[in-house]
Amino acid sequence: MTRVIFVTGGARSGKSAYAEGLAAQSGESVTYLATAVAFDAEMQNRIGRHRAERPAHWVTLEEPVNVPTAVHSAGTPVLLLDCLSVWVNNLMYHDFTDEQILQAAAELIHVARNRAGTVILVTNEVGFGIVPDNALARRYRDVLGWVNQRCAQASDEAYLLVSGLPLTLKGKP
Amino acid sequence: MTRVIFVTGGARSGKSAYAEGLAAQSGESVTYLATAVAFDAEMQNRIGRHRAERPAHWVTLEEPVNVPTAVHSAGTPVLLLDCLSVWVNNLMYHDFTDEQILQAAAELIHVARNRAGTVILVTNEVGFGIVPDNALARRYRDVLGWVNQRCAQASDEAYLLVSGLPLTLKGKP
Amino acid sequence: MTRVIFVTGGARSGKSAYAEGLAAQSGESVTYLATAVAFDAEMQNRIGRHRAERPAHWVTLEEPVNVPTAVHSAGTPVLLLDCLSVWVNNLMYHDFTDEQILQAAAELIHVARNRAGTVILVTNEVGFGIVPDNALARRYRDVLGWVNQRCAQASDEAYLLVSGLPLTLKGKP
Repeated sequence: MTRVIFVTGGARSGKSAYAEGLAAQSGESVTYLATAVAFDAEMQNRIGRHRAERPAHWVTLEEPVNVPTAVHSAGTPVLLLDCLSVWVNNLMYHDFTDEQILQAAAELIHVARNRAGTVILVTNEVGFGIVPDNALARRYRDVLGWVNQRCAQASDEAYLLVSGLPLTLKGKP
Repeated sequence: MTRVIFVTGGARSGKSAYAEGLAAQSGESVTYLATAVAFDAEMQNRIGRHRAERPAHWVTLEEPVNVPTAVHSAGTPVLLLDCLSVWVNNLMYHDFTDEQILQAAAELIHVARNRAGTVILVTNEVGFGIVPDNALARRYRDVLGWVNQRCAQASDEAYLLVSGLPLTLKGKP
Repeated sequence: MTRVIFVTGGARSGKSAYAEGLAAQSGESVTYLATAVAFDAEMQNRIGRHRAERPAHWVTLEEPVNVPTAVHSAGTPVLLLDCLSVWVNNLMYHDFTDEQILQAAAELIHVARNRAGTVILVTNEVGFGIVPDNALARRYRDVLGWVNQRCAQASDEAYLLVSGLPLTLKGKP
C-alpha cells in the first residue's frame, strides 16, 4: 500500500528522530536516503552524528540531486528521505531554475505515490524568521516553501515537530 | 454578522492562498485590500504573481498606511487584508512610533469588529529564528508580534499555516 | 505533586504572558526566576517592561548560570523559569561546552522532577528560519534545540504559543 508521510520542523526540532521512529516502528526494512554531501568538517560532523544514531541494518543511499530516481530504485518497503530542504539547496547549487526544481519535486511526488510502500519525507521550515538580507536566501525560502506545500498536499499524513513533540497537520493523530 | 478571521504563518506557508480560499468559499463578493507597494522588480514580481492567482471579479484596493479607513470604507460583505506584516513595515517606514502603530492596530480591530461582514487578516510569523543582528529588525519583530497578538485575540477564528496546511489556533476546526 | 510545564514560542509570541497566567491561576505563591542580566539599555528596557507586568507579591530571583541550584532552593509551590533560551546563551558566554550545557539541563530536569510543586519552563523556538551565517548562532540553535527537546520530553504539559494563542504539544488541551 502506498503511504506518504511528511515530517517538517525547525532545526533541531527532532524531525529526523521522529521520522526514524516512524520508519523503525513499521517493522519493515528501511532505505535511508541522504541528500546531504559533506563539504566541510562541521557538516561531516553533523552527518556522522546522524548516521551513528540510525539502526545499523538500514540500507543507506546518498543522492544529492537525482532524488526521484533514487526513490524509484530503492527496493525496501520503507524509504526515508532526509531531507527535502538539503535537496532543494543542492538543486539551486547545480543551477536548476525554480521551474526545474518544482518539476523535480513533481517527479518525486509521482514516484512516491506510485510506489508499493511507505515514503517518509523529512524537511525544514525556514520561513518563520525575519526576511533574509540576501536574495539567494530569499529565493531558497520561496522555493523550499513551494516544494514543502506540494509534498505536504500529496501526503497522507503530515506532522510538525516542535521541541521534539509532534503536532498533526494532517492524517492520524 | 461580524466575523474576524486571523491567518498567520511563515513566508511561503500558504497563508494567502488559505485566506483567499476562505474568502472564495463564502460565496460573497470580496474586497482584496493589499498593503504592499512595489518598490523594486522583485517586489513587483511577487505582487503580480499574487494578483494573477486571485479571482478577476474581486475588488482590489491598495492602501499601504491608512488601513483602518480603507477597511471601514470597503463596501463588500467580505474583506481580505493581505497583510498586517507589510502594513506594520510601512508604518515603521513612515516614522510611526511603537505606540502609534499599536494605536493604529487598535483602530483596525475596532473597525473590523464593528463591520457587518467578514474581515480576514493575513499576517506573518517572524519571531521563530535567531535574534536578528540589526536593531530595526528586532524592533519590527517586537511590534509585529504585539500587533499579531492583539489581532489574534480580537478574532473569532485563527489559523497557523505550515507547509500549506492549517493548524487551528482558535475557533472552528 | 510534581508538575513540569513547558511553554515555547517565537519572540513576542506571548509565551511569558501565558506562563505567567498559568502561574497566577494556580492560586499558589510564585517564585519568578529570571535568567536575563541586563548588559545594555535595550535589554534593561525589556527586563523592566516584563517586571512591571508581573504581580507585585511574586518573589523574583535572578540567576543567569546556576539555575538548577536556584530552582532547588526556591521555597514557593510554583516556580516560573523565564527562560531556558537566555540561560543557554549565558552558559555559552561562560564557555560551557555543549556537553556541559546538556549536563546542566539534565540537572535542571532532575531538580524540577524531584520538587514538590510546579515548575513552568519558558523557552524560545529559534530554528524556524534560514541557517544563520555565523557559526556561534548555528551552535546556539543546535544546543538550545537539544535542551528544549529534553525539557519538553520531561514535562507533563507542553504548549507552543503563536500570536498569543496556545497550541497543545502535550498534556491538557
